[in-house]
Amino acid sequence: MEQHSTILAFRTSGAGLYPITHDVAQWTAEAAFASGLLTLFCRHTSASLTIQENASPEVLDDIGAWLDRLAPEGAGYAHADEGPDDMPAHLKAVLTGVSLAIPLVGGRLALGQWQGIFLAEHRRAPHRREVALHLVGA
Amino acid sequence: MEQHSTILAFRTSGAGLYPITHDVAQWTAEAAFASGLLTLFCRHTSASLTIQENASPEVLDDIGAWLDRLAPEGAGYAHADEGPDDMPAHLKAVLTGVSLAIPLVGGRLALGQWQGIFLAEHRRAPHRREVALHLVGA
Amino acid sequence: MEQHSTILAFRTSGAGLYPITHDVAQWTAEAAFASGLLTLFCRHTSASLTIQENASPEVLDDIGAWLDRLAPEGAGYAHADEGPDDMPAHLKAVLTGVSLAIPLVGGRLALGQWQGIFLAEHRRAPHRREVALHLVGA
Repeated sequence: MEQHSTILAFRTSGAGLYPITHDVAQWTAEAAFASGLLTLFCRHTSASLTIQENASPEVLDDIGAWLDRLAPEGAGYAHADEGPDDMPAHLKAVLTGVSLAIPLVGGRLALGQWQGIFLAEHRRAPHRREVALHLVGA
Repeated sequence: MEQHSTILAFRTSGAGLYPITHDVAQWTAEAAFASGLLTLFCRHTSASLTIQENASPEVLDDIGAWLDRLAPEGAGYAHADEGPDDMPAHLKAVLTGVSLAIPLVGGRLALGQWQGIFLAEHRRAPHRREVALHLVGA
Repeated sequence: MEQHSTILAFRTSGAGLYPITHDVAQWTAEAAFASGLLTLFCRHTSASLTIQENASPEVLDDIGAWLDRLAPEGAGYAHADEGPDDMPAHLKAVLTGVSLAIPLVGGRLALGQWQGIFLAEHRRAPHRREVALHLVGA
């Protein structure tokens, strides 16, 4: 068995779900493993990772609006000195999580037909976000 | 070190938490590893995975009712053409997540005494759900 | 490639986020791997794991208050015989999750500058909590 790792960087421009499946799958394919395990890790506390529908932009919009309802701005947070969207961003990152693990089966990521990998940006300002990838397999 | 992978399929009949610990542990035991790492990955966007209490059915019912409150039907979703329970199902999958990693210690999954692995079905209609498993160890 | 595993125990004294980064990083460093994958698994159903800001105690307080709002006590739960904070604790564990995977890149955990690993205790009474760790790498 062998392993590979890298850090991919993505530019975001406001809150939303950014598709990263293509970049991730491309890096994974370079190893040409028949079987293995891919792990993704978002190195931030106001951005996160999620796997959701890759077909309908409306689903992504609804997810964003729902996160806004569950973690609204101006809810009397003690931590408010980094802007009104900062503490809600931390909460959304707690809810969605920063690590994902996806098996590689038959030479391909075991994503379902409708699943895409998304980098979830929770801040309004543009950011550069890093996602660490680790692949073990053969 | 060696690795194994498979895809298990489960039939669901309505929303709820379906226990899959037995099937997962049985497949894991076939490798007879003393130590290792098991990863589970749900290949869907309206079903997910969670680890929770394996003893009280009331806990599972309360979790279902709570998910219904956090992601209610008819909340003005833009994506509504696949039925009223579809968008709430996506949101519940975001909240609970689709991947789990469980170490194998001393030849057994490191699940606590009260922990069970559950496939969380979020749609009302019966579905066939696939969970990809990957095991690495020795 | 090699693997190591252990179980770390932590004492908690009431609900809150307990930093465990130092203990986890110390155990990880003993293997002296240049590259690898660390997995953490919380063996409980009323405690969990999350990665969040390591700098501001106010962020941690806000997260605790937010979890209390999303999973309040006395919300008509069917499962109420283990105390008013028990069912909310299960719900908070579902929301935050019990497993985390962190790549090891360049000999160090790929945590971002502001990221810390926290054991999230959701019960009021003191508890002894176990976190299983698995490390694979070289």
